Amino acid sequence: MQANTLVVNCGSSSIKLALFDHQEQKISSALVERLNTADAFARIEGIDAPLAIEPEARYEQALKVVLSAFEELGLLDSAPSAIGHRVVHGGETFREAVLIDDDVIEGIQACSGLAPLHNPVNLAGIEAMRKLYPRVPQVAVFDTAFHQTLPPKAYMYAVPESYYRDWAVRRYGFHGTSHYFMSRETARRLDRTPATTSLISAHLGNGCSITAIRDGLSVDTSMGLTPLEGLVMGTRSGDVDPGLFDYLDGKGITAAALNDVLNQQSGLLGLSGQTNDMRTLCDLADHGHEPSRLAIDVFCFRLARYIGAMMASLNRIDALVFTGGIGENSSRIREQTCNHLGLLGFELEADLNSAHGGFSDGIISSPESRFPVMVIPTNEELVIASEAKRLAETPTPSERP
Amino acid sequence: MQANTLVVNCGSSSIKLALFDHQEQKISSALVERLNTADAFARIEGIDAPLAIEPEARYEQALKVVLSAFEELGLLDSAPSAIGHRVVHGGETFREAVLIDDDVIEGIQACSGLAPLHNPVNLAGIEAMRKLYPRVPQVAVFDTAFHQTLPPKAYMYAVPESYYRDWAVRRYGFHGTSHYFMSRETARRLDRTPATTSLISAHLGNGCSITAIRDGLSVDTSMGLTPLEGLVMGTRSGDVDPGLFDYLDGKGITAAALNDVLNQQSGLLGLSGQTNDMRTLCDLADHGHEPSRLAIDVFCFRLARYIGAMMASLNRIDALVFTGGIGENSSRIREQTCNHLGLLGFELEADLNSAHGGFSDGIISSPESRFPVMVIPTNEELVIASEAKRLAETPTPSERP
Repeated sequence: MQANTLVVNCGSSSIKLALFDHQEQKISSALVERLNTADAFARIEGIDAPLAIEPEARYEQALKVVLSAFEELGLLDSAPSAIGHRVVHGGETFREAVLIDDDVIEGIQACSGLAPLHNPVNLAGIEAMRKLYPRVPQVAVFDTAFHQTLPPKAYMYAVPESYYRDWAVRRYGFHGTSHYFMSRETARRLDRTPATTSLISAHLGNGCSITAIRDGLSVDTSMGLTPLEGLVMGTRSGDVDPGLFDYLDGKGITAAALNDVLNQQSGLLGLSGQTNDMRTLCDLADHGHEPSRLAIDVFCFRLARYIGAMMASLNRIDALVFTGGIGENSSRIREQTCNHLGLLGFELEADLNSAHGGFSDGIISSPESRFPVMVIPTNEELVIASEAKRLAETPTPSERP
Repeated sequence: MQANTLVVNCGSSSIKLALFDHQEQKISSALVERLNTADAFARIEGIDAPLAIEPEARYEQALKVVLSAFEELGLLDSAPSAIGHRVVHGGETFREAVLIDDDVIEGIQACSGLAPLHNPVNLAGIEAMRKLYPRVPQVAVFDTAFHQTLPPKAYMYAVPESYYRDWAVRRYGFHGTSHYFMSRETARRLDRTPATTSLISAHLGNGCSITAIRDGLSVDTSMGLTPLEGLVMGTRSGDVDPGLFDYLDGKGITAAALNDVLNQQSGLLGLSGQTNDMRTLCDLADHGHEPSRLAIDVFCFRLARYIGAMMASLNRIDALVFTGGIGENSSRIREQTCNHLGLLGFELEADLNSAHGGFSDGIISSPESRFPVMVIPTNEELVIASEAKRLAETPTPSERP
């Protein structure tokens, strides 16, 4: 029978599911949207008709609808052989993926204060799947885990030391699953081992972060205590002067209100006043819309600044790698960013860049570039499926001979 | 008679004065401390006995005491020929030094919201000197002015665009007078013109900032809307995740309280728990005090990160220049910082670095270094004196032939 692995990624109003076979090939995926509303529905990849979900359905009910459909389509037996869950915040507790048991659930709960919008919904998905499949091994894969190798000089903020001790204030970093994948896939394509491969990984999606990876380990990254710090993103500001809070308080904007604005109404959307969608922004800029042009300029410049900053943590660079929706698809953003990087040693080849590295195994740099530049599609689901499969197959202490 | 220029730098509880002759040689200086307390006193350089200042004296009275002493010492005639004032914030109004008149005073007042701790006391000094010397030309030299050449991609934050329009939220940058001096002095020492000299200027004092200077113009800098952003400083945090405000609000720390902590109890002091004095920190670290070692590590690493970031704005580098109390005097901090910069192209020569460049016209890099590294003492007072003298001697429109 099929030994399939299921990947579950629960958001506040959505669930993403992906199904992998035992050879780690993706065989289907599904998306639940508008969860917790009267209009919830699910869609299975390649099937036009949406699946109805009863109004105000919670995670368990919605998951049941999708899983039954997978079964009816012959994609799933009565149960998957392993289930992998994306969990946003593992704090300092989880340095790698783990088999879920009651202690792990407590551990994830304990990290909820660090990711109040994410960990509770990740947990809701875990609880639902444990009810549906009590006997299937389930694995938590953390966005923060890959960055637990950051050295103290990179993860400590210059604030009173008690903030770290008492409240766990430090840089955690996110998108770890994607940066981990970049590290492995870059090594594979360059015919190197991950442990001897150093790179700068730029994950540019609706959220954006950049990581310095030295000999396979994360040593610096742009996101911090929360996913707000660092690069300019779709609706997030990235870095601002911390004095902005006090200054705007004097204009009647509370810290809570500003925090919402910096997360939801800033970034590309805030600067352009139009959209957080990069393709639309590029079209607007081409039609002479100055604020959109400025938003793109700031996005690329700030990214270039961070590429330089990441180099302080590396002693060699095997590749600068672009990934994520924008990183994989926007030759224009890659070009404008690299236009700032001549002195730092990165130079694109226009033809390769236009083709997104499609005919050059990902390479988009010119032969004269001091360091190679690549485009590599990310695959977080594959990492989660692999980790789930690996840990499900690892004998537990009691099973070991 | 002597045509001396007086430089005045008013803080909230101190006044620094410096007296230059017509050849721009400093001939004396004085310091008023504990102003606005019962223990106020002044000290003239080279004279042991402090000058008494009446309790609760304001700027005018304290200035009178010092100026009378200058006269008695034969250093000053009845009046200086020009007076230069340091003013912290010139907003977007003042792109260069200006002769002070009523309009200029209004302009400085209008910028006070951006520097509420500084501009009002700078103005108090100006008002006092105008009363004391109503006929002497007085000039305002702004900390922000040199950075007014930043391009929009470097000065715009990725926040809603209305914040810039309505509340002047943008990166201003500070220490401009020092970075300007670095630009000119580096060019002079390298036998170049400022307009063809590109450098990275790292001003490391109790406040720290770094500036990318391209062909003589500031094109990027680490301080922002306020002097809190950027590098780790004596008591200031520099960059933190903007999400820290919301997170600590949940722990009962208001935004106003956190702003105070980030300005006054963070940086080297916060991390070490001991001191903001770099020499003391180095001693503590040498004696095995781990928090002090960590504070130094974070300071140097974050500085190295910013040196890489500044390179995104440059297409050549004639020198990386260290200045300010720490930058000029701590070979250890320069060494530890440059240890992160091998891939970026900076390599020190230990002997030259130990001697602070004293026998090599400031050069401390090895012949193999891709870019030269230098140590150059800053001289903000000289810039203020020169600007005051220059503008005082420039005919006003009505005087022009």
